[in-house]
Amino acid sequence: MAPENLARAQQTDQSRLNPDRLFPAELATRTLARALYETVCDLPIISPHGHTDPRWYAENEAFPDPAQLFITPDHYVFRMLCSQGVSLDDLGVPRADGSRKETDGRKIWRIFAENFHLFRGTPSRMWLDHSFEHVFGWTKKISAETADESYDHIADCLTRPEFRPRALFERFNIEAIATTESALDDLKWHQQIRDSGWSGKVVTAYRPDAVIDPEFEGFAANIEQLGEISGEAATTWAGYLAAHRDRRAYFKDFGATSSDHGHPTARTENLSQSEAEALFQKALKGACSAEEADAFRGHMLTEMARMSLDDGLVLQIHPGSFRNHNGPVLTDFGRDKGFDIPTRTDYVRALKPLLDAVGMEKGLSVIAFTLDETSYARELAPLAGAYPALRLGPAWWFYDSPEGMRRFREATTETAGFYNTVGFNDDTRAFCSIPARHDVARRVDCAYLATLVITGRLDEDEAFEVAHDLAYRLAKQAYRL
Amino acid sequence: MAPENLARAQQTDQSRLNPDRLFPAELATRTLARALYETVCDLPIISPHGHTDPRWYAENEAFPDPAQLFITPDHYVFRMLCSQGVSLDDLGVPRADGSRKETDGRKIWRIFAENFHLFRGTPSRMWLDHSFEHVFGWTKKISAETADESYDHIADCLTRPEFRPRALFERFNIEAIATTESALDDLKWHQQIRDSGWSGKVVTAYRPDAVIDPEFEGFAANIEQLGEISGEAATTWAGYLAAHRDRRAYFKDFGATSSDHGHPTARTENLSQSEAEALFQKALKGACSAEEADAFRGHMLTEMARMSLDDGLVLQIHPGSFRNHNGPVLTDFGRDKGFDIPTRTDYVRALKPLLDAVGMEKGLSVIAFTLDETSYARELAPLAGAYPALRLGPAWWFYDSPEGMRRFREATTETAGFYNTVGFNDDTRAFCSIPARHDVARRVDCAYLATLVITGRLDEDEAFEVAHDLAYRLAKQAYRL
Amino acid sequence: MAPENLARAQQTDQSRLNPDRLFPAELATRTLARALYETVCDLPIISPHGHTDPRWYAENEAFPDPAQLFITPDHYVFRMLCSQGVSLDDLGVPRADGSRKETDGRKIWRIFAENFHLFRGTPSRMWLDHSFEHVFGWTKKISAETADESYDHIADCLTRPEFRPRALFERFNIEAIATTESALDDLKWHQQIRDSGWSGKVVTAYRPDAVIDPEFEGFAANIEQLGEISGEAATTWAGYLAAHRDRRAYFKDFGATSSDHGHPTARTENLSQSEAEALFQKALKGACSAEEADAFRGHMLTEMARMSLDDGLVLQIHPGSFRNHNGPVLTDFGRDKGFDIPTRTDYVRALKPLLDAVGMEKGLSVIAFTLDETSYARELAPLAGAYPALRLGPAWWFYDSPEGMRRFREATTETAGFYNTVGFNDDTRAFCSIPARHDVARRVDCAYLATLVITGRLDEDEAFEVAHDLAYRLAKQAYRL
Repeated sequence: MAPENLARAQQTDQSRLNPDRLFPAELATRTLARALYETVCDLPIISPHGHTDPRWYAENEAFPDPAQLFITPDHYVFRMLCSQGVSLDDLGVPRADGSRKETDGRKIWRIFAENFHLFRGTPSRMWLDHSFEHVFGWTKKISAETADESYDHIADCLTRPEFRPRALFERFNIEAIATTESALDDLKWHQQIRDSGWSGKVVTAYRPDAVIDPEFEGFAANIEQLGEISGEAATTWAGYLAAHRDRRAYFKDFGATSSDHGHPTARTENLSQSEAEALFQKALKGACSAEEADAFRGHMLTEMARMSLDDGLVLQIHPGSFRNHNGPVLTDFGRDKGFDIPTRTDYVRALKPLLDAVGMEKGLSVIAFTLDETSYARELAPLAGAYPALRLGPAWWFYDSPEGMRRFREATTETAGFYNTVGFNDDTRAFCSIPARHDVARRVDCAYLATLVITGRLDEDEAFEVAHDLAYRLAKQAYRL
Repeated sequence: MAPENLARAQQTDQSRLNPDRLFPAELATRTLARALYETVCDLPIISPHGHTDPRWYAENEAFPDPAQLFITPDHYVFRMLCSQGVSLDDLGVPRADGSRKETDGRKIWRIFAENFHLFRGTPSRMWLDHSFEHVFGWTKKISAETADESYDHIADCLTRPEFRPRALFERFNIEAIATTESALDDLKWHQQIRDSGWSGKVVTAYRPDAVIDPEFEGFAANIEQLGEISGEAATTWAGYLAAHRDRRAYFKDFGATSSDHGHPTARTENLSQSEAEALFQKALKGACSAEEADAFRGHMLTEMARMSLDDGLVLQIHPGSFRNHNGPVLTDFGRDKGFDIPTRTDYVRALKPLLDAVGMEKGLSVIAFTLDETSYARELAPLAGAYPALRLGPAWWFYDSPEGMRRFREATTETAGFYNTVGFNDDTRAFCSIPARHDVARRVDCAYLATLVITGRLDEDEAFEVAHDLAYRLAKQAYRL
Repeated sequence: MAPENLARAQQTDQSRLNPDRLFPAELATRTLARALYETVCDLPIISPHGHTDPRWYAENEAFPDPAQLFITPDHYVFRMLCSQGVSLDDLGVPRADGSRKETDGRKIWRIFAENFHLFRGTPSRMWLDHSFEHVFGWTKKISAETADESYDHIADCLTRPEFRPRALFERFNIEAIATTESALDDLKWHQQIRDSGWSGKVVTAYRPDAVIDPEFEGFAANIEQLGEISGEAATTWAGYLAAHRDRRAYFKDFGATSSDHGHPTARTENLSQSEAEALFQKALKGACSAEEADAFRGHMLTEMARMSLDDGLVLQIHPGSFRNHNGPVLTDFGRDKGFDIPTRTDYVRALKPLLDAVGMEKGLSVIAFTLDETSYARELAPLAGAYPALRLGPAWWFYDSPEGMRRFREATTETAGFYNTVGFNDDTRAFCSIPARHDVARRVDCAYLATLVITGRLDEDEAFEVAHDLAYRLAKQAYRL
């Protein structure tokens, strides 16, 4: 389906999707929301932060089967099934040793279909329905009865060339997408994409947690490797900073416009160089206390911001997740298995050292995300509504949802306005959900704008302009894409 | 009035209750909400957690007077009057020594009636209006002018057999109700109910705070008593655990399907048996520090969960209340006098020890409640949306209200779905408010579901199914009633 | 424009303001909201807490120019411009040394006009649009194109007598306004207002932070000065308390009905007199630790409350702002430059010492404000809904906005009702925004009340009564004005 027809398809007779979904119920507001949406629904997708696999675009192989496309890799999906007693093994989730207890995609799909009611009211349900219909043309409801039929339908599609990654990328009308790679990554898939001559714009992002966090598995070895890759004496403080600069330049060569940092807290520090160096040496010896490790991570955010002043990378801070909360699942299945839980996160004291150092820099963009919605109105909007260098990332992860996005706008706009926000991030590894997620964001934002107009808080002509900004322009501008 | 007529009565000419109350204003949504509600409004009441007095059902005596039914025992009511300067003495609230300064129900009722405007906008007002009209057929507004007339009307009703507890229980269409008793209770009222041959299903719940909390008044003496009742050597660690098992079995004999724990925090621990034993011995000597007492309480939640794996009792955690905040009122009037104040409560780190121990058990049900709404979306929904053993209790106490329930659904559904929640708890000692509270919950849930349908987030046939689940089936299933 | 015509003007053809702004979109609710609003829109303004300059009313000089009226002194406005890279110097914000880099009002105004889109969706935009139209009769949109024309229009108005402070005060229909002065202020402007014979009711409020906070700049010198002004031996504990009593009486002579306290936290203490005296002596020597300073501030709130029992001043607590967060801006521009950021604030444990001491006093009014909306439903409403002495201040500062006020009502009413709240505070130094702010509050409250009626939670006749209470009566009563 050509991009310009994505919205149209919703109005076909067989569609299961309400063409006015996520618009307010009241008629005047709904009518305006729809009018706003119609001006942005076909805009290209800017996806400045996400986790799709660059190998897909590099190799352009067919996706293996419906279960491995929609269930096994999507922690939103398998954790919900797990929460009602389905075992991760039965869903074919890979164990820590790499083995999979169930490899029959059809069996996995049947469990998913039988339990599809669990997703009622969740964004996963909206993304799945949207993907099934828009990507695969499947318009029946998923259930035990339609399990095999839907599996066969999608599996058949996947064998066809128009369902290969690059074809979908083009059909999704993605103007630019960022993947995320470790600082130690050789970016070979990005090299292969470039070498292939394919025109799709896939850029990387610099994710240095493995060489910034003293508590990361194998930190010292990672620094050794960093030194080798960069050709710098990375075990000295000066060499370590130089190695970062080198890697950032390398990532920039592959289109990177941002770095990304997933620390447990939003803590920043601005230590003296000698203090930082001492902590770094301690970290290399594995001798940092938890407090010292936290201070070092915090200081490195300020170092990253200083490097951003030179090389222009946007600095993204994604704090506040208690990773791998489930001890037994961590042991048996490893990291990232749906048990990352948000925690209370403070920004006011945490960001002060970084902001005191570089917060007034007009050329710098620090984008802060949160998993603690209480910080939107109380901390993040007042900070972003004052410091030139600070912007607010969109509603993130558990809040990448209709209610989450609505609360984000309601809580941040009055203090930070629209122009201290940066448009939408899909932040996903679920490739087929990308158009669905952007569609949800565009609908929710248009609903919000329509409400402002109808309640006399925004002029109608302004709403059309802001709708375009939120759907397209701000992401492109903030991420320099 | 027969249960099937409760909803009908709202449409009589003389009713003061808006038949569409709590439904969204917009017509299409309201129409659907009403249609949903009409399929659940007459369903039997499952009341799996509450504080009605089993003696009422055992003795089936008339309630003494309107003030002692509606005011004196209801902390929602008398604390609001107190907040505007009415003294607890003038309301006949019993003092710590058992005396009551005012015993004239009519005088108390007049104060209440003169101050009825204070309840505008509160759920108490909705419950009272509903009770007056549906239970007593009183349809005028309560005010200074109608104080005596309303008092006489209700007092007259109370003399009649159809207003005795069992008759009301049947009229309210209660299929099952749980009371809550201390682990040390002999359950004689439950025995008397059983002996009477009455068919009403009244079950108990196991509340062991007095023998689990080292800071509870008379902890050591309570353990002595626990030993006597259970016939176990309860002052040894092994005997103590055996005594719990014995009492749980006894409570199960009287229908208990749950235990309930009202700790200051949600802290859990999973200590070694020798560590737990050492703390227990210290607690018996009254030698625990505050930190040690907290750790012991936390550990006992995990022990309770392990016992639940054997005996099937559902484990309810009700944390986060700062009890008896008002020093002078505690001194003069004792506990539970409307000055229990919610506090910030953490769940992520607090529940980890218990969840690491038993969180993946499919046969276990741990139901977590909160008085800190910030934890809904940030902590509880992500936890319950992943761990098989964890479910979310409904909006509780101060949030047992239209806005509170709406916020609960909006904050939890997107991450935890509907099926990690457990239906409604009325959690009340105000007997006449029970139908009103369930009616509010059913209306608010139907309003929420209608909104999801009208905004394209749920199919209409699904909404009807979920409405039934939330009003009836989930409570019955989750509490095994 | 005469006050009674303020609302009318919105309906003229040339008005840019939606006459139904802030009312719900649904027709029945909107119609009722409008009906409610029409009964309160022309009520006199009670402004019991604010920061207008008494010198304006004393001297009654013309305001200098549009930029110095609307931009330079308004931290809401200049911090938003700053957040998008406009320098404070270019806006003529005074530096710490008193100098202003830009003094050309027209140049400043052009920057403001070019960036007017930044205010989309913010309350500042509503206040500005309302002020421009209602106060100055300017009905075009502010933009780069209209920058000079609007500047000239407003500048011209300012030369005319009907735009002098007293004329505006009368046109705004202000029945009473409170300013805020330091305990050390001689109140000469208030004296001059009184001496002038002008009938406008301008009262002061007692703000003793400079002589209560051991960490305040020049604390010991301030105490010296306090002693001189009051004629008490203020460096002794007894003399210090006597000096406060003396100053409070002096402020009462100039109409004060309240004291106001802007501490970092809501902490209160009720120390013994000897403990308090020891801390005081330490504070005079500059020897208090941060913890001791905090304890002393906390104790002084309880002392102020005790004095209030004698002299009847209402005690206002405004905690939770991290003042002057931006180090470089504090150094270059000084305090109050838009970088005060809210922080998490606890009330339950913090207020207990004060409430244990005086919370049951019916004659006392303690009004608590918050910058942490999570405390509304969890802490403040339960406390105010129980303690006779405690009331809730309205949505404050960043929350003096449509969404902020709506969240305040939704979060507090169900537990505290309407009558434990105190009407609206504009809390502003932006004189022309006063009618706009009260108008927003009246509209939002009427919208909320209309919603309650349409959803069956409040009777229509009650809504009209409550609308009047919230717009006028409660502020007058709570602040004894």
